[in-house]
This record gives sequence, structure tokens and C-alpha cells, in this order.
Amino acid sequence: MLRFEEYVKVASQAIAGIQYPAAPAALYEPVAYTMALGGKRLRPVLALMACDAFCGDYSRALNQAVGIELYHNFTLLHDDVMDKADVRRGKPTVHVRWNDNVAILSGDAMLTMAGQHVAKADAAHLKAAMELFNSTAMEVYEGQQYDMDFECRNDVAEEEYIAMIRLKTSVLLGCACKMGAIMADAAEEDAKRIYQYGVDLGVAFQLQDDWLDVYGDPATFGKEIGGDIMNNKKTFMLINAMNRAMGTDRDELMRWLAAENPVREEKVAAVTALYSRLGISELAIEAMNRYNDRALQVLDTINISEEARRHFRDFANMLMHRDR
Amino acid sequence: MLRFEEYVKVASQAIAGIQYPAAPAALYEPVAYTMALGGKRLRPVLALMACDAFCGDYSRALNQAVGIELYHNFTLLHDDVMDKADVRRGKPTVHVRWNDNVAILSGDAMLTMAGQHVAKADAAHLKAAMELFNSTAMEVYEGQQYDMDFECRNDVAEEEYIAMIRLKTSVLLGCACKMGAIMADAAEEDAKRIYQYGVDLGVAFQLQDDWLDVYGDPATFGKEIGGDIMNNKKTFMLINAMNRAMGTDRDELMRWLAAENPVREEKVAAVTALYSRLGISELAIEAMNRYNDRALQVLDTINISEEARRHFRDFANMLMHRDR
Repeated sequence: MLRFEEYVKVASQAIAGIQYPAAPAALYEPVAYTMALGGKRLRPVLALMACDAFCGDYSRALNQAVGIELYHNFTLLHDDVMDKADVRRGKPTVHVRWNDNVAILSGDAMLTMAGQHVAKADAAHLKAAMELFNSTAMEVYEGQQYDMDFECRNDVAEEEYIAMIRLKTSVLLGCACKMGAIMADAAEEDAKRIYQYGVDLGVAFQLQDDWLDVYGDPATFGKEIGGDIMNNKKTFMLINAMNRAMGTDRDELMRWLAAENPVREEKVAAVTALYSRLGISELAIEAMNRYNDRALQVLDTINISEEARRHFRDFANMLMHRDR
Repeated sequence: MLRFEEYVKVASQAIAGIQYPAAPAALYEPVAYTMALGGKRLRPVLALMACDAFCGDYSRALNQAVGIELYHNFTLLHDDVMDKADVRRGKPTVHVRWNDNVAILSGDAMLTMAGQHVAKADAAHLKAAMELFNSTAMEVYEGQQYDMDFECRNDVAEEEYIAMIRLKTSVLLGCACKMGAIMADAAEEDAKRIYQYGVDLGVAFQLQDDWLDVYGDPATFGKEIGGDIMNNKKTFMLINAMNRAMGTDRDELMRWLAAENPVREEKVAAVTALYSRLGISELAIEAMNRYNDRALQVLDTINISEEARRHFRDFANMLMHRDR
């Protein structure tokens, strides 16, 4: 197998090689722009690694890996319109650089292009690849809808939150793993297990994202700390704080949630202090580790070489020790 | 073969039978709502007719027919967000009844559901069905983008306009015809020809739409006459008027195009009178008939029974004599 950085390079080259028609420019330029913004390329790397682990030839899943990354970036593009987010990876988002209509339409095109890449599979794998891709896509929309539903609710339970991020974030990592397994003709039981590895890892990954937004190092995090706090985003942190805070803590939390135009530094500092008082940081790290452990446990049951297993273990370790 | 109304009934029943998960409601209710608004169901009927004509069993294309109608309605849903259209088939549009974010996300889900229905094809037809569906979808986005590009241009040529409506509207009718042919194992040459029939018919259909928006009977048209004129929409009518009007006619047309908050009745009456003076109505009818004739000519070369050919001829006649 290759080293992690080498899979990233293979994925990045394939992504850079996507062909975009020249016209109409306002349809295809935003797609090329979005795909060129970069990112960690975790999903295509997982697809390539899984394919390699099961058959020794990662290239069999290359088109599908690109398709999944196109899909992931399509969700970011449309999410940015819905969230009215101005910046993505240090650059203006598509709806800011162009406009909302261009962002909607080029996102639609990106979704179809994602399907086209997955559908490049040969006849023997096409059905399974399309079914996995399409059913995963539906789950991702469901997760995004639950996330939007939660904005208007103050009684979201931790389990509901985990179920939401499982749909919105994690199943696509599971899909990437399973896609690699499918293209490699892995046994069905193994394909299911590598899917579970990806999903559990995805939950741990999102929980860490929530944690980093509060406790990350501003020097390395890549975006401003406290964005979720400022937006009252119902993250694992806030949900648990709302469920745990009593008395004056609860009053203070509710006051900050209701504050109009609060001073950023003050609100972030106060809510962070509250989280720390309530033990929310430890709670998040605990949950994160629990899902990471589950991923490693299921990994141990998969029929792959010990070398391949080590690669997936290293991948999980790397994710859990990232600072951005 | 069945009568036209019977194909409509088969398509409508299949559409009514689409299964929507119960939750999250805000994701699936707008999809069910959109599909229940009705419409002429021309695309699924064409798919069923074509399949029936080539193999005598329309049911082979039923899932793909539903998929194409889901796709068509997805484009209407997202177009209504982009156009800020409030009403569709006499009911509030999704972004009005819910909101923009719900309309974007449920439209995305609808696009994936469309692909899922097309992908229900058996292994022997899956590759061809997916490739036709995906490449057609890309062309439809291109057409929509050109349509938006034309809004900012005053020099659109008639040929450019025809090329745009071919992409935005016609290829999906061609796709429906060819999808039926593919599912029926028609010869490749016949599949190409029935595609061409659908595309030419689609151009005639859109030209008629432009014409009806000006010269339609308000009692039967279903929406207010003159909507395109009020919106300065670059239709076949306006493009030709802009290219033909000289002297005072041109000045008057430009004045109406630039008028802020004009009285509806006045602007519609004045521009319609201008169209009539410039012979635009005849020009549109001529172009419409030209494309309708092309569709009927290619129809004559397809290897199908004379009964089937009559069905497709009747379909074209019905389209050309509709009043809404």
C-alpha cells in the first residue's frame, strides 16, 4: 500500500484532471473553483485505501473516489448558500463571488457530475456503486434537514444530535470506505465492516470538529475560534451544556443565547468558561474516543493484511490528532 | 398500444405511488407536494409510448419514466427559487410555502431520487440509461445557465436562442423518448431517431409556449397572459422584435424594456401591438411548424408499426393544438 500522503497525491491529481467544458463559463467555473479550493481529501483517500486493502489496486476505485469528493464539495457549496457563509477555506464562497443563482445551479451540475463519475464503474460493479452512492446522498440530505430543524429547538437530546451528524457527515466517510471495498470485490461482510469503521470514525471526526471550534489553537485552526458559539449552533457542546446547566449557569447560558449583537470576545469567553465549568470538554473528548475506539474495534475484525489494518489505524490516529 | 389518456393514467399512478419517508418532514413533504401539483406528464408518457412502440411492453420503462418526471419537477423547483416565482400551477411554490433553504435541499433530494428511479434498470440497461440521464441533465443545466446569461444581453441571435431552448427544454423530451427505446432494446439507429423526434418536438413546444404567453386565450392559458413581456424575458418573440425593429418602433420597444413599474395592461398591449406590426407572431408560428415538421419527418424513418407512428403523430398534433 501507499503512504497517506501518496494517496492524497493520487486523489488530488485525479481531481485536478476533471474535465470541465469551457461554456457556459458561469456553470462550470464555480465547480472548478470549488474543487480547486483544496481540503483534506479524506473521502477519496479512504476509498482508495479500502480498494487497495482489499485487492491491491487502488486505481479500480479512482473514478468513484473523485465522484464522492465532487459530492462532498457539492454539499459544501449548497450548505454555504443555505448558511449564508461568506468564506470557505480562506476564499469567498461561490454565492459571494458569483451569486445565489449561480451557486444553486452549479451545485446541481456538481451533483450530477458526481453521479457521472460514480457511474463510470464497469457493468459488474455499477449497480452496487450507484445504490450505495444514491442512498448515502439521501441520508446526507436528511442529516442536513435535521441540522436545520434543530436550529428552532431547545430540547435536542445528545442521541438525536449523534444521529444527525451520523447522517450529515459520517455516512459519506462510510460510503467512501465501502465504495473502495465494492470496487475491489471485497466480501459483503467485510464491506459492511469497513463501512462501519468509516461511519464511527466520521462521528468521532465531527465531535472533534465541534470541540476544535471551542478549544482549538487559533494559530493552526484555520478559521476563527468560537464561530459555533457566536451562531448558537446546536453542537455536541451546546446541547450538553443546555441539558446540564442548572440555576445561575442556566440563566447565564440562556442570556448569551438570547443576546443581540454581543461582543464576540465576551460571548466566546463566557460560554467557553461555562462549558469548562460544566465539564463539557471532557464529555466531548470522551464521546470522541468512544467512537474512535469503536472504529478501531470493527477494524480488527476485517479480513485484510496487518499492513492494511495499520494504515487504517494510522488514518484514525491522524484524524484524532489533527489541529484543523 | 394504449390511448394517450391511458398512458397519462399509468404515469400518474406510478408517480402517485412514489414512496416518501415520513421524516424529516421538511425534506420529503416539498417533494411530494411538487409531484402532486400535476402537470401534463408529457415526458413520462413519451418514455412509455416509445418503450411500447419498440417492444410492446411499456412497463419496462416505468421506473425511468418516473425518474425523468422527478428530474423535470426538480428543475422547476430550483428554477422557481432562481426566478423568485411565487406561483406554480395555481399553488404557492415550495420556497414560498416553506423557504429558500427547504426548496434548495428538497430539490437536491429530488434530483438524487430521480437518479435512483432511473437506476432501478436491470443490469443489461443500467449503463445506457444512466449515461443518457446524466448527460441530458448536464445539458439542461447548460440551457438554464445560457437562459440566465441572456438576461444581461441585448444581442442574442435567434440561433443562440434555439440552441438554448434545445438544451433547457427539448433534450429532456428527447431523453424520455430514447429512454423508452433503450429499455425496449430498440436498435441504436432507431433510438437516435426517436430522440431526434423528441428534441424537435420540444423546440416546437417551447416556441409555442413563447407564443401562447402573448397570444394565448386568457380563459384557457392557466396563467396570466403577458408574463414574459412584463419580465422582459428574452423569448423568441422579443429577440426577433429586437433584431427587426427599426426607427420609432425600436425606440418604443427600448422605452418599454427600460420602463420602471409600467402599468401591466399598457405595456402588454403596446409590446403585443409592436410584435404584430413586425410580423413576429407569423415568424414564431413558422418556426414552430418547421420544427414540428422535422419531428414528423424523422418519425417516418423509424422502424415501428404504423399504429405506433400514428400515436406519435397524434401526440405532436395534440401538443401543437394545445391552449395551455
